Amino acid sequence: MKDIAKRFPENPLLSPSDIPPSHKDLQIACILNPGVFQFDNKTWMILRVAERPEQKKDAISFPILTETSSEVIEISKNDPELDYTDARVINYKGADYLTTLSHLRLVCSDDGIKFYEPENYPLLIGQGIFESFGIEDCRVSYIEGIYYLTYTAVSPNGVAVGLRTTGDWKNFQSHGIILPPHNKDCAIFEEKINGMFYALHRPSSVAIGGNFIWIASSPDGIHWGNHQCIVKTRKGLWDSARVGAGASPIKTDKGWLSIYHGANENHQYCLGAFLMDLENPTKVIARTHEPIMMPIEEYELSGFFGNVVFTNGHIMHPDKNTVTIYYGASDEFVCGAEFSIKEIFSLLQYS
Amino acid sequence: MKDIAKRFPENPLLSPSDIPPSHKDLQIACILNPGVFQFDNKTWMILRVAERPEQKKDAISFPILTETSSEVIEISKNDPELDYTDARVINYKGADYLTTLSHLRLVCSDDGIKFYEPENYPLLIGQGIFESFGIEDCRVSYIEGIYYLTYTAVSPNGVAVGLRTTGDWKNFQSHGIILPPHNKDCAIFEEKINGMFYALHRPSSVAIGGNFIWIASSPDGIHWGNHQCIVKTRKGLWDSARVGAGASPIKTDKGWLSIYHGANENHQYCLGAFLMDLENPTKVIARTHEPIMMPIEEYELSGFFGNVVFTNGHIMHPDKNTVTIYYGASDEFVCGAEFSIKEIFSLLQYS
Repeated sequence: MKDIAKRFPENPLLSPSDIPPSHKDLQIACILNPGVFQFDNKTWMILRVAERPEQKKDAISFPILTETSSEVIEISKNDPELDYTDARVINYKGADYLTTLSHLRLVCSDDGIKFYEPENYPLLIGQGIFESFGIEDCRVSYIEGIYYLTYTAVSPNGVAVGLRTTGDWKNFQSHGIILPPHNKDCAIFEEKINGMFYALHRPSSVAIGGNFIWIASSPDGIHWGNHQCIVKTRKGLWDSARVGAGASPIKTDKGWLSIYHGANENHQYCLGAFLMDLENPTKVIARTHEPIMMPIEEYELSGFFGNVVFTNGHIMHPDKNTVTIYYGASDEFVCGAEFSIKEIFSLLQYS
Repeated sequence: MKDIAKRFPENPLLSPSDIPPSHKDLQIACILNPGVFQFDNKTWMILRVAERPEQKKDAISFPILTETSSEVIEISKNDPELDYTDARVINYKGADYLTTLSHLRLVCSDDGIKFYEPENYPLLIGQGIFESFGIEDCRVSYIEGIYYLTYTAVSPNGVAVGLRTTGDWKNFQSHGIILPPHNKDCAIFEEKINGMFYALHRPSSVAIGGNFIWIASSPDGIHWGNHQCIVKTRKGLWDSARVGAGASPIKTDKGWLSIYHGANENHQYCLGAFLMDLENPTKVIARTHEPIMMPIEEYELSGFFGNVVFTNGHIMHPDKNTVTIYYGASDEFVCGAEFSIKEIFSLLQYS
């Protein structure tokens, strides 16, 4: 198999051993799924860092956040009420838990390849009862001087979309949960359209429906309505089980271009693209039939959760044709790849 | 078992044979779950009317809405790809369908007991691609001269909450989907609080979380944010599997009183109540431990989907103590019962 991604020869750009854990009792299991933005003349990533204690042979242990701090839950693998068949989510006594606790970490780079942790910038950790299982997969949208951070907020209440805003990456304002469960993969457009904010998001259905991409609009970026389903899974194709938007759509002459992830029943995650009308983004006018990127390299095939490429961050180049996507590989590493927008367009099929 | 509901001796108030189907080729399988409001000096219900063709012995058939009209899908019961173990939702070739198509029908009454169809008022039917499997379980909230209709909008895209508004019940404005899948049981408060609209709603989670009651706020009644989970299921109790708000909460001196439904693992649906802070309804201050109403009567125990009492409409009496709830019994009949607010309060347990 081949795809049209030009992977960085330096991949993976970041591995769990490259940054220190947030606490001496924890280890970093994965760093993945970076949001990406430009700030202070540098390229920045806001990484998802997934941590847990050193794992004993016969037990599963993971931290959760409490009101003031955190605690570790440890469950024997012999416990008949434990189901740990999925590396990411376990079920114990009928309740689901994440096997790792994620926070968001800032790193920056002068060349877009070598990233380092800047001094005097905070970690972003889960806050309050709707983020006690952590925060994940942050998209960053820069709109009228403000950075909008949309991320997955996980807690026993459910999996939902949280929003924080910042101007300087040191002071943040929380706007709570903007999309209720079960929802992920929310990317706000970086421009208002006809005076309204727009966002892509991915609700999931317990019956009737599926894991589809929806679009919503908002007068203020905080309160959302007019939800419409615009991209569905496709039976028999690489995106048959779930689809979800990547970073904020790219504005082109021909429309808003979204790079999205799709997974099939075997949990293989690939990337594709679709195009929305410039004036009315609820209208999808084209979509790639084949993926534009598939897990091929060793670091994409094997890891914490293998066979995965997943993106929620990119940088457009000044040539207006090259886009560097940063992506999570195997839910464990952070990698980079370039695409030609023209090449992506050549794979779009107009409906 | 006993409960504190004073059922109308006239129950059921309405049965499927009491009103004509919307089309000569359809039969009414159920009338249920009425929204209730006062208008033109009468008590009105907006019924959910669930229809399907006459059922052949060896097949399941049901209508769905198309862009301009409707069509009937018929599936042989011998088809190995059909699962019809649930009377309400079937699965065929991996996709879910409803066994009936619901629309909303207005009836009115001078005494709150005998209801009849008024002349020259329209049916409300599903419109557009997000309502092609019908519209259900409408709550009506009267706010500053406008009736807000929140209802379940069902389609292959998922189960979501739609909003229409009206002033005269003849002309309606659609505001699309205000809460994306999977969501139901949305009731808007009939007063703004500190300048904001508030609503209860019930998202469902595919993993982590559950079927819990959330609250959200809105500057305009159309765009919603700041979602917070406020009422959860309780293991081992009558509301262990799902909870969902009834009609708009009742304003009392002590707080906003919500009558809600809860179901257990055996799909027995009962009613309970909880109380929210007057100034900050995100704060739940009390909740009944036992149900205030359980399926006891024959018409509540047997029907299209038995063992169910479910309410989404009520009328407060001028005495400020008596509330008449209208409710769906066994997903087939419309019934009424009175409660004393004082008695409900006597069962509330403060936390």
